Amino acid sequence: MAHYGAKVVVPIDLKKKPWEQKHPLHNRWHPDIPVVAEVKDGEVFRVEMVDFSGGGITSDYSAEDVKHADQSIVHYLSGPIRVVDKNETPAMPGDLLAVEICNLGPLPGDEWGYTATFDRENGGGFLTDHFPCATKAIWYFEGIYAYSPHIPGVRFPGLTHPGIIGTAPSMELLNIWNEREREVEENGHKSLKLCEVLHSRPLANLPSTKGCHLGKIKKGTAEWEKIAKEAARTIPGRENGGNCDIKNLSRGSKIYLPVFVEGANLSTGDMHFSQGDGEVSFCGAIEMSGFLELKCEIIRGGMKEYLTPMGPTPLHVNPIFEIGPVEPRFSEWLVFEGISVDESGRQHFLDASVAYKRAVLNAIDYLSKFGYSKEQVYLLLSCCPCEGRISGIVDAPNAVATLAIPTAIFDQDIRPKAGKVPIGPRLVRKPDVLRCSYDGNLPTTKNPAASM
Amino acid sequence: MAHYGAKVVVPIDLKKKPWEQKHPLHNRWHPDIPVVAEVKDGEVFRVEMVDFSGGGITSDYSAEDVKHADQSIVHYLSGPIRVVDKNETPAMPGDLLAVEICNLGPLPGDEWGYTATFDRENGGGFLTDHFPCATKAIWYFEGIYAYSPHIPGVRFPGLTHPGIIGTAPSMELLNIWNEREREVEENGHKSLKLCEVLHSRPLANLPSTKGCHLGKIKKGTAEWEKIAKEAARTIPGRENGGNCDIKNLSRGSKIYLPVFVEGANLSTGDMHFSQGDGEVSFCGAIEMSGFLELKCEIIRGGMKEYLTPMGPTPLHVNPIFEIGPVEPRFSEWLVFEGISVDESGRQHFLDASVAYKRAVLNAIDYLSKFGYSKEQVYLLLSCCPCEGRISGIVDAPNAVATLAIPTAIFDQDIRPKAGKVPIGPRLVRKPDVLRCSYDGNLPTTKNPAASM
Amino acid sequence: MAHYGAKVVVPIDLKKKPWEQKHPLHNRWHPDIPVVAEVKDGEVFRVEMVDFSGGGITSDYSAEDVKHADQSIVHYLSGPIRVVDKNETPAMPGDLLAVEICNLGPLPGDEWGYTATFDRENGGGFLTDHFPCATKAIWYFEGIYAYSPHIPGVRFPGLTHPGIIGTAPSMELLNIWNEREREVEENGHKSLKLCEVLHSRPLANLPSTKGCHLGKIKKGTAEWEKIAKEAARTIPGRENGGNCDIKNLSRGSKIYLPVFVEGANLSTGDMHFSQGDGEVSFCGAIEMSGFLELKCEIIRGGMKEYLTPMGPTPLHVNPIFEIGPVEPRFSEWLVFEGISVDESGRQHFLDASVAYKRAVLNAIDYLSKFGYSKEQVYLLLSCCPCEGRISGIVDAPNAVATLAIPTAIFDQDIRPKAGKVPIGPRLVRKPDVLRCSYDGNLPTTKNPAASM
Amino acid sequence: MAHYGAKVVVPIDLKKKPWEQKHPLHNRWHPDIPVVAEVKDGEVFRVEMVDFSGGGITSDYSAEDVKHADQSIVHYLSGPIRVVDKNETPAMPGDLLAVEICNLGPLPGDEWGYTATFDRENGGGFLTDHFPCATKAIWYFEGIYAYSPHIPGVRFPGLTHPGIIGTAPSMELLNIWNEREREVEENGHKSLKLCEVLHSRPLANLPSTKGCHLGKIKKGTAEWEKIAKEAARTIPGRENGGNCDIKNLSRGSKIYLPVFVEGANLSTGDMHFSQGDGEVSFCGAIEMSGFLELKCEIIRGGMKEYLTPMGPTPLHVNPIFEIGPVEPRFSEWLVFEGISVDESGRQHFLDASVAYKRAVLNAIDYLSKFGYSKEQVYLLLSCCPCEGRISGIVDAPNAVATLAIPTAIFDQDIRPKAGKVPIGPRLVRKPDVLRCSYDGNLPTTKNPAASM
Repeated sequence: MAHYGAKVVVPIDLKKKPWEQKHPLHNRWHPDIPVVAEVKDGEVFRVEMVDFSGGGITSDYSAEDVKHADQSIVHYLSGPIRVVDKNETPAMPGDLLAVEICNLGPLPGDEWGYTATFDRENGGGFLTDHFPCATKAIWYFEGIYAYSPHIPGVRFPGLTHPGIIGTAPSMELLNIWNEREREVEENGHKSLKLCEVLHSRPLANLPSTKGCHLGKIKKGTAEWEKIAKEAARTIPGRENGGNCDIKNLSRGSKIYLPVFVEGANLSTGDMHFSQGDGEVSFCGAIEMSGFLELKCEIIRGGMKEYLTPMGPTPLHVNPIFEIGPVEPRFSEWLVFEGISVDESGRQHFLDASVAYKRAVLNAIDYLSKFGYSKEQVYLLLSCCPCEGRISGIVDAPNAVATLAIPTAIFDQDIRPKAGKVPIGPRLVRKPDVLRCSYDGNLPTTKNPAASM
Repeated sequence: MAHYGAKVVVPIDLKKKPWEQKHPLHNRWHPDIPVVAEVKDGEVFRVEMVDFSGGGITSDYSAEDVKHADQSIVHYLSGPIRVVDKNETPAMPGDLLAVEICNLGPLPGDEWGYTATFDRENGGGFLTDHFPCATKAIWYFEGIYAYSPHIPGVRFPGLTHPGIIGTAPSMELLNIWNEREREVEENGHKSLKLCEVLHSRPLANLPSTKGCHLGKIKKGTAEWEKIAKEAARTIPGRENGGNCDIKNLSRGSKIYLPVFVEGANLSTGDMHFSQGDGEVSFCGAIEMSGFLELKCEIIRGGMKEYLTPMGPTPLHVNPIFEIGPVEPRFSEWLVFEGISVDESGRQHFLDASVAYKRAVLNAIDYLSKFGYSKEQVYLLLSCCPCEGRISGIVDAPNAVATLAIPTAIFDQDIRPKAGKVPIGPRLVRKPDVLRCSYDGNLPTTKNPAASM
Repeated sequence: MAHYGAKVVVPIDLKKKPWEQKHPLHNRWHPDIPVVAEVKDGEVFRVEMVDFSGGGITSDYSAEDVKHADQSIVHYLSGPIRVVDKNETPAMPGDLLAVEICNLGPLPGDEWGYTATFDRENGGGFLTDHFPCATKAIWYFEGIYAYSPHIPGVRFPGLTHPGIIGTAPSMELLNIWNEREREVEENGHKSLKLCEVLHSRPLANLPSTKGCHLGKIKKGTAEWEKIAKEAARTIPGRENGGNCDIKNLSRGSKIYLPVFVEGANLSTGDMHFSQGDGEVSFCGAIEMSGFLELKCEIIRGGMKEYLTPMGPTPLHVNPIFEIGPVEPRFSEWLVFEGISVDESGRQHFLDASVAYKRAVLNAIDYLSKFGYSKEQVYLLLSCCPCEGRISGIVDAPNAVATLAIPTAIFDQDIRPKAGKVPIGPRLVRKPDVLRCSYDGNLPTTKNPAASM
Repeated sequence: MAHYGAKVVVPIDLKKKPWEQKHPLHNRWHPDIPVVAEVKDGEVFRVEMVDFSGGGITSDYSAEDVKHADQSIVHYLSGPIRVVDKNETPAMPGDLLAVEICNLGPLPGDEWGYTATFDRENGGGFLTDHFPCATKAIWYFEGIYAYSPHIPGVRFPGLTHPGIIGTAPSMELLNIWNEREREVEENGHKSLKLCEVLHSRPLANLPSTKGCHLGKIKKGTAEWEKIAKEAARTIPGRENGGNCDIKNLSRGSKIYLPVFVEGANLSTGDMHFSQGDGEVSFCGAIEMSGFLELKCEIIRGGMKEYLTPMGPTPLHVNPIFEIGPVEPRFSEWLVFEGISVDESGRQHFLDASVAYKRAVLNAIDYLSKFGYSKEQVYLLLSCCPCEGRISGIVDAPNAVATLAIPTAIFDQDIRPKAGKVPIGPRLVRKPDVLRCSYDGNLPTTKNPAASM
């Protein structure tokens, strides 16, 4: 029988560790990480991937694994994949690589995921000053839907997407990254005007040999040592795409990635069953293993043609996207607003991050009235298909940010209503999200006016 | 014949000045601005309004009026309107006022609008360091559609909304505003860590008697003097709603506003035919006169029931919204990404404002390849129904913001394509947006890598 | 002050009768009905219109006017309007007239409508054998929304559209119409295989001088007599468009009409605030007066270029449409199915009309369990934005038709549920739809198995 | 490792014949076909299925297999599956079985499908009098998208659904079916008023032992003989659901099926990657093998509670549906209209089937101007996500039906345009759809006015 469908170029065996796979995974960006496969322009191919932690975080009903999560190993990526055209000529620096996501989903038989908050001292998150403790919720998938025993009363269709997809940086680009991120880590607190109400977690994550995996390159070799010291961490999104965490990058969407090295060297990972805009709890999507079916087109010279550098070099560009035609359809949204006044009442100047923080805090407090703990809502808003918008960025001194939540994901009516007391009708606080034992020992930012 | 339809409670005569109207307009927030009308819970009523400038900016093909715009008079609001229930009991502090927008639109016979950038020294905008000069584009409406001779090749349906809708603040809340905004204006540059790559326009707009209008209160009276010195400017959105510029607040949407004074004292103005998220050029929506048909419901005690204060007092709340069911439907979006690295290549820490700035700059440069000047695109992205998202806010050090543009608003295909040179196919640079004569005399921020 | 907006070419004064208007209305199709206005290609113009009955059916809470409705006068149309290009050359036979609906709505101050069923002996409707009596429901508009005291518990946004829009027929086309419709009226019961379970109401509505209005042509003149005897009734949709009752022909949509006479002679009327697919009760939309803002483009030779005649002459064509971008957005639909087996259990062969009849009957019975009378639901499904689909038309012997109802229009959850008895929770049967006094005197088709 | 995901209850091995499968397939409806699996209320389970022909129609580039297709074997179904509640009590007659489609898709490695027209003398289709010959187009899937070398210039996302899903009939219901269908086959041409312009293909498909498969029951046994003579063919949709071909029955949708026998005995098959409303060419969807992930809920007594019988017995009911939240999103539709006047110009009375036939013919002729053969368009409109609507069913004598086609599926602009000749810009007639050799030997209905 003939085979019809995508060719598997990176298979995953979930019983093996990331470095034991047929094509060992990598968790750094570097031009010298060896390619593991080659694909042709126009060909549909399948890439499988582990969850970002490579199985480190499990489906157990305990947040201990999250508490002790090793941040040095994130994120395990599949690839790099070399892209050539029909004449076997590889993609070249200056080209644009149009990557279409033809399909994607969880790996068969592994249809579950997790949403978590890291410990404040071990990665934290957007609201880590309010929620400093490691927590975890497990989600199970019923086809397109996810539900969690830890956040009952909620069920929603996934807008599944890869958190990370990107091309390999050239050495020149890699040096730019390392330099600017070293600067922020070393001098940021002095030189840069940081937003004081966003907890200053590690300002950057610089190259480190600890936890480093470089695919086929053997750990401990000289080559490995050299590359590991240079290779960029995968945590922030950058010029090559990478961890952009764009929740709409789902079925049928297209990504136009700049090419920096011969062959493009495409890598991907960090599959999300669903994520809210901002992925606020940091480990906040519904994290899972999964597969992508991709199709690449090389647009010769397209990087120069279409992307204007925005910075000191021609490499300071960003990818472009097209959103796909198949997304969950919601009609009714409840929208929370935040302005750039912080929890202490202090006025900030057009700071969209502060405004968004306040919008998320407003939403958490509101939804907690319907029978949820605030931790439950924090996790929920990290992973459900909610939309974070920059509504106003010019009306000094207040930026206005909004967070829109589709009401249909709840099995109760969460809209404000006359003559109805929201507290009481549904108490879904038990079972709670899983927490670690030292809960509450860290100081948190208090909401000065909240009576509860 | 019986009359069926909304009762007009605030009529506007466009041949008269804002202060000559039957119910003279006001442009400040203060509890003592006298109510001009009373409406009942459940009743549909019509409020008409002038454009935010009260006719100061005209349909002439010149940006001189924008250059010399008097910022002290913005925004002329209709109201305040007192809201009572069916038993004539007014809305009371602590209630929630649910305001449904049953309908809205331009005033008949006045179906045009404008989008402008203010001079950098006279208000500026989000990208004022790149675009320092006053410009203006005129839009004409064909029913649901708008088109501009100054930005040809573009036509789109409006997502019409009031830029400003809010309740009157109590004196206590007004004092909070004045205090925190005075603090930022006086000490912001020292004490606050401002984002250095956002041009520090006036940090705040404090109360000023200049340009102040207080409705029925005669200018120059003692009462006027007292109130004018206390009354808050309408520029930023705040706890009472106000200038939140939420582009989706259109037909069928609902706003849940906190009530701070007896009667709620609802005011509204600054109608926008259409606006992009962020309204980036500041005077950036398609500004117009218009009407609203509203219906109010008083949710007794709802402010306490539904809004958790997020700050030092019970007044530190924000409104909630529900989005309406009738919005323009778009299927295909081209998405531009920005990360929190500025135009000089400097790394910032999770700064969504910087990331959004870069996303907008990326979009402007991209679209300018299709035959537009950058000024045209800057205005277009301010007013077309584009979506600004906070995509990633946790992956240190980069915030990721995205700007999604519906491709259907263009009469050419703006997607990247192999084998097609975008420059050339459509040169729509003439006629340009209208500029003032001293154009280019102010220093602008250069894009270090751009060759053009 | 300059005027911006559509030019009014056909104004309506609701205090006057249809024939007393500045441009007297007409209710027949004929090439010789004199034009009342001329518009240019590209110009936006406004046409106002009375409701189809010209005020004959009122907002009184009684169905007596419906019972005695004079069918000879339907439908009062505004026009004809002559269309010329920028060089004053008129549209010519063989051209295609692209008509864009830029905007539309009720006439200000007349924001109400009605939905009715005619008496079985006076026009009937799709289910007239089940519902033989005249009934009426009054709807009031709150901006985009309609509600009715006679069908409580329901409120929905309108998908407003003109029921009738068309060009004048040439004499040749008019003769074709009259001939084929005379044939069906005279010989249909013998020669044609009619569907026996669709009540055979008047098989056709042939020209008649009774009730005829021809615009500017004086009643009783020789010219009037001649034309009145030839002019086609407006009831069916035909090659010229006309009464096509396409519910999605709303804001932003485009109609490509064939041109049969010099100038095109466009007429329109029968405005609907909202209608369900099929308009099942016949007088079934929310009927109202209203206005259209239109823009025409002449596509020279487009009729021949784009429309293939489907019949014995080149005139046997049908219009084409494009749906507009602004429609109410619904996410959740409950769908009822019907197959081509009639109420007596008899099998029909691929008859979509029978299948749709059964789907509607299924929906009526289902919804009546939620506290409505069947008459209420019959009217509701005529006018709410429900979708009627031909799902299967090939699987002999059963055609499958479906009727999809947006669940959000109800204020109760109408989906089937375990452990919940639907009867009881909401009894909204009072006040009922208004009926005439002889209710029930006519025999109706019984549902053989229904216990109620 | 734990397994997360749906339990496979009916696996398919594509290398085996339908009757060789682990759970042999059946192609008839009968209460005595033995169940092959049991599932619990609330459990997510996976059912795999062959294409409707069980592999009879292949991916070869020839229509010979379609020409000689054995109609006696359609459709191979997977099941029956017995449904029990958590206490092991089976679904009982009078219950309602809510079946949620959690997920579905092609079988991995078998990602292709076909669309075909049968020979007029071997099944025919809706337009068989115009297109009498067997044709076939092969489609390949790229994730969510399908494309065909035989209909180039078109690519669209699938709205995948099972053509057939239903419960087993009771003997009483089966007898009703056989009786009414025998009546139509035997006496239809005399007694029933058939629509004369719809080619009278076999009026019904009565039970026949030829080609009959009954799952585990051995062919040739006495039991087999008895059941085969009684068992209903699967071609028409009926009271039990069955072949309803509802194209929106996709991911996340729910079907409320009446239960007629203990255990419900759910069967399903005939997977469609995509289908247009009406599935006009009969073998008209993109036919494929596939899988369903289902979840059942038993609503006790729900058949009586929610479904009103519409016919002489309590069994004369139809299923209800809810549409799922994940469907391809299209914004722009070109709509073709048909009225109940046939190709010879003859007037019919409110016949929606005739009107829909004309709408489809209009669309075929229109699209053929853009470089396609009419056969290509006929197949395309059978399988692309086009919508067939009953727009007007009351305006005697004309029913109005519409066919809406999403313009985004084409790689050229198919809208009418001034100054552009459609013929020529894209000639995609080669390669054509595959035809059988005797093409054109059968007489076809001529379109009297078409010049081509």
